[in-house]
Amino acid sequence: MTEIRNRRIILASRPVGMPTTDNLPIDTVTLPAPGAGEMVVKVLYLSLDPYMRGRMDASKSYAANVALGDPMVGGAAGRVIASNNPKFKEGDYVFGMFGWQEYALSNGAGVRKLDPAQAPITTSLGVLGMPGMTAYVGLLDKGRPKAGETVVVSAASGAVGGLVGQIAKIKGCRAVGIAGGPQKCAYVVDELGFDACVDYKADDFREKLKEAVPAGIDVYFENVGGAVSEAVMTRMNDFSRVALCGLIAHYNDTGAAEGVDRLPRFMFSMLAKRMSLNGFIVSDHPERAGDFFKDMTAWVRDGQVRYREDIVSGGLDKTVEAFQGLLTGRNFGKLIMQIAEDTAA
Amino acid sequence: MTEIRNRRIILASRPVGMPTTDNLPIDTVTLPAPGAGEMVVKVLYLSLDPYMRGRMDASKSYAANVALGDPMVGGAAGRVIASNNPKFKEGDYVFGMFGWQEYALSNGAGVRKLDPAQAPITTSLGVLGMPGMTAYVGLLDKGRPKAGETVVVSAASGAVGGLVGQIAKIKGCRAVGIAGGPQKCAYVVDELGFDACVDYKADDFREKLKEAVPAGIDVYFENVGGAVSEAVMTRMNDFSRVALCGLIAHYNDTGAAEGVDRLPRFMFSMLAKRMSLNGFIVSDHPERAGDFFKDMTAWVRDGQVRYREDIVSGGLDKTVEAFQGLLTGRNFGKLIMQIAEDTAA
Repeated sequence: MTEIRNRRIILASRPVGMPTTDNLPIDTVTLPAPGAGEMVVKVLYLSLDPYMRGRMDASKSYAANVALGDPMVGGAAGRVIASNNPKFKEGDYVFGMFGWQEYALSNGAGVRKLDPAQAPITTSLGVLGMPGMTAYVGLLDKGRPKAGETVVVSAASGAVGGLVGQIAKIKGCRAVGIAGGPQKCAYVVDELGFDACVDYKADDFREKLKEAVPAGIDVYFENVGGAVSEAVMTRMNDFSRVALCGLIAHYNDTGAAEGVDRLPRFMFSMLAKRMSLNGFIVSDHPERAGDFFKDMTAWVRDGQVRYREDIVSGGLDKTVEAFQGLLTGRNFGKLIMQIAEDTAA
Repeated sequence: MTEIRNRRIILASRPVGMPTTDNLPIDTVTLPAPGAGEMVVKVLYLSLDPYMRGRMDASKSYAANVALGDPMVGGAAGRVIASNNPKFKEGDYVFGMFGWQEYALSNGAGVRKLDPAQAPITTSLGVLGMPGMTAYVGLLDKGRPKAGETVVVSAASGAVGGLVGQIAKIKGCRAVGIAGGPQKCAYVVDELGFDACVDYKADDFREKLKEAVPAGIDVYFENVGGAVSEAVMTRMNDFSRVALCGLIAHYNDTGAAEGVDRLPRFMFSMLAKRMSLNGFIVSDHPERAGDFFKDMTAWVRDGQVRYREDIVSGGLDKTVEAFQGLLTGRNFGKLIMQIAEDTAA
């Protein structure tokens, strides 16, 4: 095959606050020809997820940070355009951690074949991928909801949050979402079937939240932190559980906030209400992948779980802008960047 | 029997910060004669415990607060001096929630007979009582230590903390205490057999803590909060557990501390390290009482668990002062107030 000029987004410098194209410029390199056992994947869809912000920082996070000068990491769906790997052939659709780039050289490790006849390949980045499994493991294993309990999830119109509430409904719980703006809230209730959704941008957010959880909150699936979290904590029941999945409100924090130290009060609540708080990362739970795929595939097939994908076109040139939008809640549904059209390489 | 003038300490006003005798004056009332099924207990030893501070507040805590004008609540050991209850007879030694007073009228609910031949009756307030069971349930059920792991406990020379480390040793863990001052630390290591104890009052506390936990911390049994807790959090391992038992450093807080909001950073740690935090109150776990009594009685008998009681004389007149000392770490071992000599009523 002819030489491939590969465009990719590298981490040139660590962002302070919101990441910019200065931090994340595009560079162009020649893709090495695939060696023995290797293949070339043309990236079609790149998943953009909040966890990526943490990978840009130098501070210890739960996963290896991206080194300066390296391409940004990320899950993506693509098509094999050349292969010396016996398990994959040209034309195969695949999911893998291909990163923020137009082409990826892969030895096949961690790569999984996709069947576009069964489900759109973009679902491998969302409902049938990492966000789906995050909702599944976080809610069921960390939140441990019982039928009749009230489950609240923040970022409820997002890739993970939208699934959390729907799984909660399947398990017989009252599902209450928190989302930004009336349009997202309407979607959460009307399309996803939550019992209620509260707009955190509204002035009467705290009152509406109180009204939405007349029996208090038994499980809180935490995606955001900040003021939303603080309001939720006041309504948590005795013996309630917090599944701590993300803290998107704080991802661009540049230092500790001055003002009032809320930690002692938080700890008092945890003690007085005998609560449990569990931080988790879905990649620690590969043993649940089988259950997840079986259940979620059936739920999607039976219409018990609905999902929304926010597919943004524009390729790598628009990727940083789309990622900025993710951190401020501009996306609506699972944010997916279309990196290329599915045409011949 | 002759009329009994009962002296008792009532909650006259809710303390702001440290409780005083203005908040907790002594009043004297005539004890009603015991009715059918009732008995009169002469209180000999009153347990003084940090949780009592919370009962003095108006804010929602994990147990019913004491109403203004009511006697302060508390566990105590005493002797039955008159009984119309067929289950208890004059001369029986008993444990019950008799409160901060010299005599108690009881219908026998929640009262348990003690055998002074088997163990000093004061142990019903400590190692074989609520503090002992708190250590047992909190460490084993909430901390879930595995052999070879490192367990850290604050207030390590206290009634609960001293037992936590000893149970950790029995379970094959490295036990590290945190206590105030070299004398308490020496006791924790030399008498209780912890592997190490770090003085939180020393200037090099953080360095010493780091040295004492070369493999990091897997279980933290939290009794104090504040700066101690903050230092411990930086050394917690991935997948570590916090058993949240108490926050004595904050019990006299009169409002939120100004300065830096430490909550976001704390939550990030919980997430990045996939930690679990469990607030608990021992009274929620009566089903564990059988296991606790069996194990702890055997451990004490075999010398695997040692305990220290700090029995303060002076009766009700000195009780508030002793309680103040408890909140500032002045006691050394389980604090017990001797309310009366064990003589005829």
